Amino acid sequence: MTETADVVRLLTDALPHATSTDPADLAASRVDQSGWVADGTPLAVVHATGIDDVQATLRIASQTGTPVVTRGAGTGLAGGGCGSAGTIVLSVAGMNRILEIRPEDELAVVQPGVVNGDLNDALAEYGLWFTPDPASRAISSVGGNIATNAGGLLCAKYGVTREAVLGLKVVLADGRLLETGHRTVKGVTGYDLTALLTGSEGTLGVIVEATVRARSRPAGAVSTLGAVFPDAAAAAHASARVTAAGLRPAVMEIIDEKALAAIAAHLGSSGLDGLPLDGGAYLLLQTDGPAAADEAGQAADVLRAAGSDPQVSADDASADRLLAIRRSVHPALAAQGQVLIEDVSVPRSRMAEMFRVIDDISARTGIPIPTVAHAGDGNLHPNFVIPVDPDAPVDASFVPDEVWEAAGELFRAALELGGTLTGEHGVGVLKRRWLADELGETGYDLQRQLKAVFDPQGILNPGTMFPPEAVRPA
Amino acid sequence: MTETADVVRLLTDALPHATSTDPADLAASRVDQSGWVADGTPLAVVHATGIDDVQATLRIASQTGTPVVTRGAGTGLAGGGCGSAGTIVLSVAGMNRILEIRPEDELAVVQPGVVNGDLNDALAEYGLWFTPDPASRAISSVGGNIATNAGGLLCAKYGVTREAVLGLKVVLADGRLLETGHRTVKGVTGYDLTALLTGSEGTLGVIVEATVRARSRPAGAVSTLGAVFPDAAAAAHASARVTAAGLRPAVMEIIDEKALAAIAAHLGSSGLDGLPLDGGAYLLLQTDGPAAADEAGQAADVLRAAGSDPQVSADDASADRLLAIRRSVHPALAAQGQVLIEDVSVPRSRMAEMFRVIDDISARTGIPIPTVAHAGDGNLHPNFVIPVDPDAPVDASFVPDEVWEAAGELFRAALELGGTLTGEHGVGVLKRRWLADELGETGYDLQRQLKAVFDPQGILNPGTMFPPEAVRPA
Repeated sequence: MTETADVVRLLTDALPHATSTDPADLAASRVDQSGWVADGTPLAVVHATGIDDVQATLRIASQTGTPVVTRGAGTGLAGGGCGSAGTIVLSVAGMNRILEIRPEDELAVVQPGVVNGDLNDALAEYGLWFTPDPASRAISSVGGNIATNAGGLLCAKYGVTREAVLGLKVVLADGRLLETGHRTVKGVTGYDLTALLTGSEGTLGVIVEATVRARSRPAGAVSTLGAVFPDAAAAAHASARVTAAGLRPAVMEIIDEKALAAIAAHLGSSGLDGLPLDGGAYLLLQTDGPAAADEAGQAADVLRAAGSDPQVSADDASADRLLAIRRSVHPALAAQGQVLIEDVSVPRSRMAEMFRVIDDISARTGIPIPTVAHAGDGNLHPNFVIPVDPDAPVDASFVPDEVWEAAGELFRAALELGGTLTGEHGVGVLKRRWLADELGETGYDLQRQLKAVFDPQGILNPGTMFPPEAVRPA
Repeated sequence: MTETADVVRLLTDALPHATSTDPADLAASRVDQSGWVADGTPLAVVHATGIDDVQATLRIASQTGTPVVTRGAGTGLAGGGCGSAGTIVLSVAGMNRILEIRPEDELAVVQPGVVNGDLNDALAEYGLWFTPDPASRAISSVGGNIATNAGGLLCAKYGVTREAVLGLKVVLADGRLLETGHRTVKGVTGYDLTALLTGSEGTLGVIVEATVRARSRPAGAVSTLGAVFPDAAAAAHASARVTAAGLRPAVMEIIDEKALAAIAAHLGSSGLDGLPLDGGAYLLLQTDGPAAADEAGQAADVLRAAGSDPQVSADDASADRLLAIRRSVHPALAAQGQVLIEDVSVPRSRMAEMFRVIDDISARTGIPIPTVAHAGDGNLHPNFVIPVDPDAPVDASFVPDEVWEAAGELFRAALELGGTLTGEHGVGVLKRRWLADELGETGYDLQRQLKAVFDPQGILNPGTMFPPEAVRPA
């Protein structure tokens, strides 16, 4: 084992322009948007500006057996990109150039640090669109979207990030450069390493370039509907009827009673566009494409038959007001305390049951768990609200044990309903202890062996996805 | 190494109902739809009727170090499922039950031997649809579709098979049962083994059950357009303009001049619905969904601006006549000789160049290479027509060396244009010698190591995908 001082000197010698040991830099690399703060302080942050920098960093890391945490925009929600004691933080945020846009091939080639929203702004000039649409799209990077196989609001209709990635350049643990995939929609030569690396959370390699699909934007205006139901289970049933009617809204979101009450408290009734928010749950739909208005009309009929009185909007201003209610969830909850945002998915048909399980757990434990859901794909975000002193420093232990116990109960319930413990945020550090429960012994065993093929020393993002003891450094 | 007689006895003892050494059975297992005939005769065919049978077979195979070739409907086009000397052929064709259809979750659970068309017939009763649409859909099995990540005509709009698979049950080389994926659209717990196994051509495990997406069928009638262009390159340019106009036809096919001439010779002018087939190339489009007619009208405008005079059809009968021209390609070519169907993909913008490369190779070598293409995704099928004595027995060597040399030239050209040597058929036995050219040294090396994780003895489908010397039995 090389001394840590030697590692820093090797980095500084090889990458004098890129290596930082500035305490503010080191501190900033320890956190992400989950509220997680990593234990201890990393050795250094390398601000890579190109593939060469990444390769040089990984060569030093593998030669010295030093762990590397790759970090993009730092908007993760699972603690997966946070620099801890003894690690090199490899930031690719500065690799943020769009290298190509090819309208005729419906693709773009980007560096990993390009922000999703910036890519979409550039593509919009060509009438094109990168469909992955995480709620963080204004601040999250495409590399991070790929590393977590990010979801978002539009997945039921437009797919997850995996379906938008055609090919990757990836620096392996030993510094070699791997190229995967194609500039074509089809391609079945060998195993699909592009898909395997998508969602691998920095544990198999470092994404340094991506060829992504750029689709034509749907033609015409969107139509937006908002409807209030007595409770989230009723809204879930209504959303299931929309799907069963063969309709495929671009957006279909549920805000449960507790989350809606928090929004009402936060915005006041004037911010709510006249919606009757006293005690109900909110279902928000948006249709797009050439038949948007027609589909919205059919969806409104379904919602009326399910007992609600939907507001339908075909103009951008009123659509924005309806969507603003959904966008207010997190600010409204953050005003009440520190929030642990959970992320289970269940089959659509079990969504109402999952809402009830969450209510039960909340009632039994006394922990408020206001919940929102991407209803089209059964992805629920239960938000554990933890009252904190706003003036106290946040640290790694902001989530008390009893909250994790309640979250564990919720994960097990999701698995029992045929679901998963993370729909779109990733396992990261925060959910690794439940990984084996979902994968089963055979799957867990295989996944550890796959990790070892890419990273025999166990230096890539150790502690993320797998518990540290499962991936021992050589 | 166990004696082969012992292997057959072990199989017969363990699976008396399923094990066959009938010479007709053994002979039938040596071929697929590519025309390939494997060298030698397999030891036995196991006609599995359930997961237990598959596990028992693989336990015997791994205990005795015997290679196993998994086989579904036998409709492959790359020689990947053909039983050769010394192998056990594990047929899952008899595992053909649809286990669940869940309209509310838009999914179905099937055994691997279910024929694609049969699944779609069953789903149609619910207004649902399994979107993978290989030309073989009436005869190919869902397990085979998944094992090859099958493509088809609809991929530019509806995606490849990978995007329709939610989860798998897979028997590993040692007989253990692995479960991957979810009953949900989203799910990012651990590495995406479902995607890794999709397209793995029987080299990582045996698919024994699949949970697949079942989407709502697009509403309304389809619209169909057919247009003649001076040559395939002109048709390719026109199809690129359709894409560039933001239109996304469900089907967009090109039939080049030589293929169209063969169809004209085969069908006679009466079968051609009055199309002027003298010397041109044919572009066929079909739009679907609620705006089908409108999109077809816009596409017709684009094609007219590109210099053709499209026929537009909105009724099923005339649409069928236009599509029948596309469906006649293979019967028309088969009437001229033995056909090696190739399968390159290139970026859409390079399709016209690829058509010219194919013409050049054909002119230089004197080998007729009539070509059809899925134009929406740049996937070309150059058909090498080899005159044969129809009465002579077909054997493994039906493709002469000079044809393989020409095919190799074509593959290299596709790679140089940013494409791939197989868009949808798979590597199989027939294209393994070019695998490393496309993957590069680092990729090839990693893929071999991944194979070794799943199959340390190298008993799963040896000779498929990797050259035999690359995967040595332990």
